[in-house]
Amino acid sequence: MGKTKGGFTLPGESGYEELTLQMAEKWGADVIRDSDGTELSPEIINAGYGIYSTICIIRDHNEWAKQNLDKLQQTFLMTDPVVAEGSELTVELMKDFFDEQFRINDSEESKAYWQVFDRTTNEEVKDWEYADGKVTIKNITPWHKYTVNFLAYRIWEEISMYNHTTNNWDKEHLMQIDPRYPETQQYMIDWMKNWCETHPATTVVRFTSMFYNFVWIWGANSRNRDRFSDWASYDFTVSPLALKQFEEKFGYKITSEDFINKGDLHATHMTCDSKKLDWMKFINDFVVDFGKQLVELVHTYGKKAYVFYDDSWVGVEPWGERFKDFGFDGLIKCVFNGFEARLCAGVDAVETHEIRLHPYLFPVGLGGAPTFMEGGNPTLEAKGYWKNVRRALLRDKIDRIGLGGYLSLTLPFPDFNDYIEKIADEFRLIKEFHNAGKPYVLKPRVAVLTFWGKLRSWTCSGHYHEHPEVDLINVIEALSGMPLDVEFICFDELKERGLDDFDVVINAGFAGSAWSGGEQWKDEKVVTMLTEWVAKGGAFIGVNEPSAVCGYDTYFRMAHVLGVSEDTGSRICHGKYSFETENSAAVCDGTEIASRGNIYITDADTRVLMADGDKPVVTMHKFGKGMGVYMSSFKHGEINNRTLLNLILTAAGESLDQLYMTDNLYTECCYYPEGKQLVIINNSDKEQKANVNTEAGVKEAILAPFDTFIIEL
Amino acid sequence: MGKTKGGFTLPGESGYEELTLQMAEKWGADVIRDSDGTELSPEIINAGYGIYSTICIIRDHNEWAKQNLDKLQQTFLMTDPVVAEGSELTVELMKDFFDEQFRINDSEESKAYWQVFDRTTNEEVKDWEYADGKVTIKNITPWHKYTVNFLAYRIWEEISMYNHTTNNWDKEHLMQIDPRYPETQQYMIDWMKNWCETHPATTVVRFTSMFYNFVWIWGANSRNRDRFSDWASYDFTVSPLALKQFEEKFGYKITSEDFINKGDLHATHMTCDSKKLDWMKFINDFVVDFGKQLVELVHTYGKKAYVFYDDSWVGVEPWGERFKDFGFDGLIKCVFNGFEARLCAGVDAVETHEIRLHPYLFPVGLGGAPTFMEGGNPTLEAKGYWKNVRRALLRDKIDRIGLGGYLSLTLPFPDFNDYIEKIADEFRLIKEFHNAGKPYVLKPRVAVLTFWGKLRSWTCSGHYHEHPEVDLINVIEALSGMPLDVEFICFDELKERGLDDFDVVINAGFAGSAWSGGEQWKDEKVVTMLTEWVAKGGAFIGVNEPSAVCGYDTYFRMAHVLGVSEDTGSRICHGKYSFETENSAAVCDGTEIASRGNIYITDADTRVLMADGDKPVVTMHKFGKGMGVYMSSFKHGEINNRTLLNLILTAAGESLDQLYMTDNLYTECCYYPEGKQLVIINNSDKEQKANVNTEAGVKEAILAPFDTFIIEL
Repeated sequence: MGKTKGGFTLPGESGYEELTLQMAEKWGADVIRDSDGTELSPEIINAGYGIYSTICIIRDHNEWAKQNLDKLQQTFLMTDPVVAEGSELTVELMKDFFDEQFRINDSEESKAYWQVFDRTTNEEVKDWEYADGKVTIKNITPWHKYTVNFLAYRIWEEISMYNHTTNNWDKEHLMQIDPRYPETQQYMIDWMKNWCETHPATTVVRFTSMFYNFVWIWGANSRNRDRFSDWASYDFTVSPLALKQFEEKFGYKITSEDFINKGDLHATHMTCDSKKLDWMKFINDFVVDFGKQLVELVHTYGKKAYVFYDDSWVGVEPWGERFKDFGFDGLIKCVFNGFEARLCAGVDAVETHEIRLHPYLFPVGLGGAPTFMEGGNPTLEAKGYWKNVRRALLRDKIDRIGLGGYLSLTLPFPDFNDYIEKIADEFRLIKEFHNAGKPYVLKPRVAVLTFWGKLRSWTCSGHYHEHPEVDLINVIEALSGMPLDVEFICFDELKERGLDDFDVVINAGFAGSAWSGGEQWKDEKVVTMLTEWVAKGGAFIGVNEPSAVCGYDTYFRMAHVLGVSEDTGSRICHGKYSFETENSAAVCDGTEIASRGNIYITDADTRVLMADGDKPVVTMHKFGKGMGVYMSSFKHGEINNRTLLNLILTAAGESLDQLYMTDNLYTECCYYPEGKQLVIINNSDKEQKANVNTEAGVKEAILAPFDTFIIEL
Repeated sequence: MGKTKGGFTLPGESGYEELTLQMAEKWGADVIRDSDGTELSPEIINAGYGIYSTICIIRDHNEWAKQNLDKLQQTFLMTDPVVAEGSELTVELMKDFFDEQFRINDSEESKAYWQVFDRTTNEEVKDWEYADGKVTIKNITPWHKYTVNFLAYRIWEEISMYNHTTNNWDKEHLMQIDPRYPETQQYMIDWMKNWCETHPATTVVRFTSMFYNFVWIWGANSRNRDRFSDWASYDFTVSPLALKQFEEKFGYKITSEDFINKGDLHATHMTCDSKKLDWMKFINDFVVDFGKQLVELVHTYGKKAYVFYDDSWVGVEPWGERFKDFGFDGLIKCVFNGFEARLCAGVDAVETHEIRLHPYLFPVGLGGAPTFMEGGNPTLEAKGYWKNVRRALLRDKIDRIGLGGYLSLTLPFPDFNDYIEKIADEFRLIKEFHNAGKPYVLKPRVAVLTFWGKLRSWTCSGHYHEHPEVDLINVIEALSGMPLDVEFICFDELKERGLDDFDVVINAGFAGSAWSGGEQWKDEKVVTMLTEWVAKGGAFIGVNEPSAVCGYDTYFRMAHVLGVSEDTGSRICHGKYSFETENSAAVCDGTEIASRGNIYITDADTRVLMADGDKPVVTMHKFGKGMGVYMSSFKHGEINNRTLLNLILTAAGESLDQLYMTDNLYTECCYYPEGKQLVIINNSDKEQKANVNTEAGVKEAILAPFDTFIIEL
């Protein structure tokens, strides 16, 4: 591959001007960025590159914040349940929470939203008083347990808090201001205006991100510091003002308990009620409407506005209907995995899709392991991440890549710099192929059916490493690099749109989760439509507890299609069909699918392709002209990915013998018909040989570990 | 131990008169019995022994049955769901069922109870017609699935059917007649009268058992022959007449769906609604009222009446309120395990408690393994069963033991006959100790809290080997030989009686099961009473999913006491307390407790005594003056049993250093204060040494494998 240029964002570093410009040249950078909390020197700024500048609009305003402590962001918290020994009980509100993160909002308008519950009976208790950080509950039932929902200011911006405590910083704690208040809005607009005026060299303003952080509640006890963390929940968006405005707009009052939900809160991994959906819409509207003003302001200065999709991203919702209204020019996503690249690439409403590669140029990486320091191997790390991301980049176009952190840390690792040079060139070539036209896909069109549908396309709330146990995050990681068209649909969309656009529907997750769909399966229309569609030739693939909901003759509502269901206990006295496991070419040797409890065959015709003792693990069941496929769980990985692809093909009635598929499952390929370019990749750390059947005959490639092979047909 | 006599029931065998009398002498028998389907010869009958004769009142009447095919016993069945492809669907009723067991009852009064359901919507469909074994359902929704509840005669008595198919018999199929009909009752009374008159030598009539078999539904498909089997369910008691009489008595109509329950039926392992409880009462009343007539008839002939507690025992309910009204003289239970001996011993309403030991004198035993034939080792089997049963016999008095089967089969196994001689003597000695007075117990008084309470004392529906996975069956097997007073209480009894009689409450089972209690835990009174009682010094021990029910802030309603709960998914984003596992003398080395999914600590003070990775497996949590103890599962066994006993003692605030406990967990002991007799037993297949701290100092015993050591203090 020849040297190419562009589409690369380099983190510049003051004091290392020469290195910055040298690396910009080596990696073909067209843009130099600062990082959060750093400034570029004039020597870099004036070198003729585009300049990205990061801003965090809700942070770094401590002076103003200190004068407006009533305009800090807030959240509802629930005290841990306390058992009453008598008819009165005093609860210390902050006892369970990290006091550097929260401060009780005991204003009158705040207390109007507080609620005390008898959690033994689930009844609200109205007779309570607040004083000095404590709520005293009166006339209660001894030996019942009680909780207090209260409203607290968040006095330490969570990302700052995390960096502080992780790196033992000793700086001032940064606070986060809430744009819900007109005064804050005015302050932010003034600040933004001033910022633009004082940063003439900046070509792109990168927002990190907008206003509200994902939920991250820290506890008082160091043994349980991380009380709650959800990358996509909206709990950090509340305030008495917002709650009042919500009531005015939606015509009903939302309560603290609607957020607290008996202490469970509403994790994005779970389904939720319509109140939470209304609240999300309310916040999304606000974030878009006010965010749009800031974007427009940036545009008036001739600068572009990109948004970073992490941290304070809540309410931004790049896959939501209203994202286009922001007017953002670009979307930036830091990526560990393929699905994250697809999540970024698939957003139509921006011109530029940029991904930030890992490892960041920091001494330590995830979990504190050494990266750019002694003991680290950043090149190997980069190869691992690139392996994950590359297969997704082949499937959908990303416009830019880049790095973050301190460039000088790469000095002792010249092989890292060489490797980045290589993948930057590779990336630019792939982008060029995409520019010529869409890559070749196999026939089955896949729908992933979840509670969230399109809104949570290519994500299961957060990074892979946070919830590797979630089946769907593994499924979408596998899908992210497959030669298949994939859409994410919710149950309403299924009912309104029908399934004519799809050949395969995947439903994957534990019962009650947003990913399997929970209560949505009570809707007979959903079951009926899917049943008819499968009978007429569709394929329904279920993982873990697909279509599971209580109250029917089978726990899996689609049991008649899948040919399996799960016994939740009530069938303990029922016999189960014995079975023989049959060999199937679809299930690759080495496939590992963990079994789960009490899955049983509902139909003598169900074929078991893989089993763990007497537990079916992979099954296939013909239903009319279509097929039901069940997998008891799914973890992504080279072998399992290929098995999944094979099962999709088989379920859709397609042969496993396809054009533009490699014959070696440690490799994959992507074909771009317009330019007749075939890209073969090695996903393993060993040399691999791969043959690909093409319209121009069989093509063979021998690939070095992790390598990419490109051939024009 | 010297030779003793009595309390032993020997199975006589015609053609082996000499052997019969010789063994009667050797084993100290005072009674000779026939077995089902065999007759004793005059030589045996006239040898001066008591004579037991077995009768099965509902079977062995094929001639009458053939003339009264409308008076055979019945059951409701549900067809497997079928998906409709159009607006009409024809379902073949017997397609899924073993046609030698069932015949459709298509009489008008039967069809009045049939029901057709749309299982996609859970709605009943009224538009259907029956003809020629098929139901045609009309005007239905395509792609929904439908089932038919219908009533079928059972045309092959299930025990006969099992013996036939297992042993490839070629005899006539025996049918079972239903005493619900006046004609059947009259026939049975006449038959019983005639029987008594023609069996003058019989001293004891053994009923096997009364009228209705436990539920055992066989399927058409040989891969799923055993469709449903529940040792304690009442489905085999229905008929149009019974249903009509129920309606008259209880003032409401019970439907087929009340039994079918969406195809799940109502396993005894699960909780149920009040309709099933009403039905059980209805049947129990009938079985007692008519059974009593037969018992009285037997008494008029100067014979005793014993009932065998298995097979057609449904409605007999020896632990029920009305059992005493039968007037039975004895209760006989076949036993594999200790809990079964306690189940028999604990029934107050009879004079004689007899257990039938295993192995039965049959060529093959459970699961077809050789016993009294080449390859069998009946002595070792007998030792294993005696080991299970002996520890229970030490705790509560059994009056008689006995064997069943063909005596001649023991001829090639003289060591078996010697071993039976030994345990018969041992048994008589233990019985003598009991006659002197109650054995010594440790201080903690234990209540096992279940949905069934007293009614299902010392059982979890059937034999151990049928459901070894059930935690409670393991717990009660462990308890059956412990020096503790144990009672079984239900939730109503807990509320009415309070907990003053107890120091420890055990709740063990999976969520929704009758053993953990399911919906009963929604009753705040239960939670409140237990909470107060623990706070004031009680101990609550939970196993698996104790007190689990959906809808509250913790899945385990007693989480505040236990210090642990379970995440069913909604807490996926919550942090969990990290913990260190501490060593505890209570948890014996070698204890094996399997972990289960997503158990987490709810309180920083919870002590983890055993863990599997990051999953707590055994925990202890101080609550007020009392204690909560959690075990994620329980399997009985020497080591685990001792750990359970230790946890009970510790939870109840007692020292592990107690009088009359052995210092070697492979041994146990029982002390009878009245006679100052100390019995030490070796539960292992190896020699063991045990020390026992007594009021008369430390006593030491060296015990051969499985042996018993008796010492007077």
